[in-house]
Amino acid sequence: MSATQNSPVTETARRAKEAAAELAPLPRTARDAALLAVADALIARTDEIVAANAADIDKARAAGTPDAIVDRLTLTPERIAAIASDVRDVVALPDPVGEVVRGSTLPNGLELRQVRVPLGVVGIIYEARPNVTVDAAALCLKSGNAVLLRGSSSAYASNGALVEVLRDAVAGAGVPADAVQLVPGESRDSVRELMRARGLVDVLIPRGGASLIRSVVEESTVPVIETGVGNCHVYIDEAADLETAVAILVNSKAQRPSVCNAAETVLVHEGVAAEFLPLAVEALAEAGVTVHGDEAWQKAGAQVVPATDEDWGTEYLSYDIAAAVVPSLDAAVRHIREWSSGHTEAIVTGDTAAARRFTSLVDSTAVMVNASTRFTDGGQFGFGAEIGISTQKLHARGPMGLPELTSTKYVVTGDGHTRG
Amino acid sequence: MSATQNSPVTETARRAKEAAAELAPLPRTARDAALLAVADALIARTDEIVAANAADIDKARAAGTPDAIVDRLTLTPERIAAIASDVRDVVALPDPVGEVVRGSTLPNGLELRQVRVPLGVVGIIYEARPNVTVDAAALCLKSGNAVLLRGSSSAYASNGALVEVLRDAVAGAGVPADAVQLVPGESRDSVRELMRARGLVDVLIPRGGASLIRSVVEESTVPVIETGVGNCHVYIDEAADLETAVAILVNSKAQRPSVCNAAETVLVHEGVAAEFLPLAVEALAEAGVTVHGDEAWQKAGAQVVPATDEDWGTEYLSYDIAAAVVPSLDAAVRHIREWSSGHTEAIVTGDTAAARRFTSLVDSTAVMVNASTRFTDGGQFGFGAEIGISTQKLHARGPMGLPELTSTKYVVTGDGHTRG
Repeated sequence: MSATQNSPVTETARRAKEAAAELAPLPRTARDAALLAVADALIARTDEIVAANAADIDKARAAGTPDAIVDRLTLTPERIAAIASDVRDVVALPDPVGEVVRGSTLPNGLELRQVRVPLGVVGIIYEARPNVTVDAAALCLKSGNAVLLRGSSSAYASNGALVEVLRDAVAGAGVPADAVQLVPGESRDSVRELMRARGLVDVLIPRGGASLIRSVVEESTVPVIETGVGNCHVYIDEAADLETAVAILVNSKAQRPSVCNAAETVLVHEGVAAEFLPLAVEALAEAGVTVHGDEAWQKAGAQVVPATDEDWGTEYLSYDIAAAVVPSLDAAVRHIREWSSGHTEAIVTGDTAAARRFTSLVDSTAVMVNASTRFTDGGQFGFGAEIGISTQKLHARGPMGLPELTSTKYVVTGDGHTRG
Repeated sequence: MSATQNSPVTETARRAKEAAAELAPLPRTARDAALLAVADALIARTDEIVAANAADIDKARAAGTPDAIVDRLTLTPERIAAIASDVRDVVALPDPVGEVVRGSTLPNGLELRQVRVPLGVVGIIYEARPNVTVDAAALCLKSGNAVLLRGSSSAYASNGALVEVLRDAVAGAGVPADAVQLVPGESRDSVRELMRARGLVDVLIPRGGASLIRSVVEESTVPVIETGVGNCHVYIDEAADLETAVAILVNSKAQRPSVCNAAETVLVHEGVAAEFLPLAVEALAEAGVTVHGDEAWQKAGAQVVPATDEDWGTEYLSYDIAAAVVPSLDAAVRHIREWSSGHTEAIVTGDTAAARRFTSLVDSTAVMVNASTRFTDGGQFGFGAEIGISTQKLHARGPMGLPELTSTKYVVTGDGHTRG
């Protein structure tokens, strides 16, 4: 069940596995010291990082990359200082490792403890932003894991420089350098080898667009945590306060449309459609949002464009929203069950029974009652950090903080106990 | 990412998904009533089940199946009564669904609750014993899940009769019959289709031999929980009480050699080898165990046969054990890290520092201190039931009870909260 080839990628994974074994029993003080050394080194070696980043930027510009993407790629001294500050914030978080999750003394006197332990080797496959390189490494180190980083080839030089800084810093603090490694190679083959390194890599977390995530989920023999695809819905119930409903709808859609917890569809109970639709059409237009509506929505405003089935299934990540009128709460739930990616759905209602039914029937990572979909976020939830938002049901669901980067083991202590 | 073919298997999975949506919001009373109806029906329809089972037994006998396997396959009125009694025990267990795992009021007043919910559709692939059909269905129903059962083709008639009884009983109690379904078809193709039904099936749990589990892990796009392969080790430390050590070793190996938590290798610190090996060789011989030993063990008894590397990696599941002398605790840990399947390892020692180091360094599902490996078991751990023993790190590790058959969702309640 383990990877057998001896490619550069599997060799990297093998070294990560050895580093993970050394890292796992280290106490919090050792891991925290390594992270503080990382924060210091990022500041001290800013010039080096900015220089490497400049090479990526030149390459991106030469390739005609859009400005917004180039901006995401760019590291300035200020941004590096912010990244270092985030690392210090991670140091301050509670240590998940060693937490006793469950414990009891069994009738025969055996002492049972279920204890949090690191997962081992965590692989992160991600796109564009080089700050993820440091964030992900910091969260993995804090939780006692070795990390294999596979960033976008467009950030290869930046990521290489950052990982050099990280490796030197942790090694200087007595943590094995191989606890932080870049996956070698810029081709798709290196991703494929990482996905087949079962037995060496304990989990893969893909962060990025839907097609990246789908390909990892379908091809990986290493266990995967699916993240991020968010076709989120806002349902305006018959019993909604309409002013509140407009505010939540506009905030869910337009406060930051490019992220996974932004709303992509609004469903409105027919009982309030006549009153709500004109308000919503106006407010969405003011926020710069194009409405892709069903017939009822089209009648509510000339600027509403017709929606097709494709719209119901689309994660726009832009100033666009699909919109429909539904005959009932249950019809809204059926629509969500058919089209949602299971990330976040919101209901706006003043009716406790409607809220209870919606939260019970909707099977998504997060269900909001009278609140914006934008709150599904590790920072907003008070987790202090987030490695991603899981949209799957196994292991972790929703924003993943440090505990989600751990497994557990049972430690059972007796004094010569045998089974009769 | 969802299955697109319309084979009988995917149609079955689609019906299961619909049943799961109906089942999930049902309160405990409804699920418990269905299970009590199942227990009653198993008793009332015993003749039918025994008759179907007789057909499987005749087929197995005609195919020259060994008596021990035929015995595992056999259902008698007494065994059916015991299965029904187990179902009643499941009814009495605490309900995992709806448990608030974590909750807080956020600084902005949002009320956050992380609530246990059913996984949805659970697929179980298992071998031989038809009692698993009822056990697995009962645990899935209790935890609010629909179940797809894919038993051995040798038990096809028995499983068919049992599932008929289960479906009738739950439907009579108001739970959708399609919450319990047999995967149609006796060929490998039906297993393959089940493994590709991503989007319809939420998790697959293979229970059986190493080759079954490996093939599911490698071919499935549905998330898998690996269970059961147990190459377990007992390490006798330099500071062990040798009488205790012999008792734990013999119990770990020979109390029931055919199960995954039985020991397959014993490692002995060289400091106690001269005294311990003769005692162990004698005790193991008395228990009918063949020792496959390294040179030191071979010298300790004429009946010890030479061990090869293959022995270190073998899960015998028989009255055989691999045996080696190691120079230190750390060498024992290295051996375990190289060869163990990560199920259960035990240390026998009177030295607290040795116990602490062993439990810290060994990365297995369960680590026993001065106790038999045989205790890694949901029943022994007090979980009241067990759907299998996970040997993977994601989602669940170790014996899986009812909580391990659930996921969670976040329910977030505000009064018009938007993000600034």
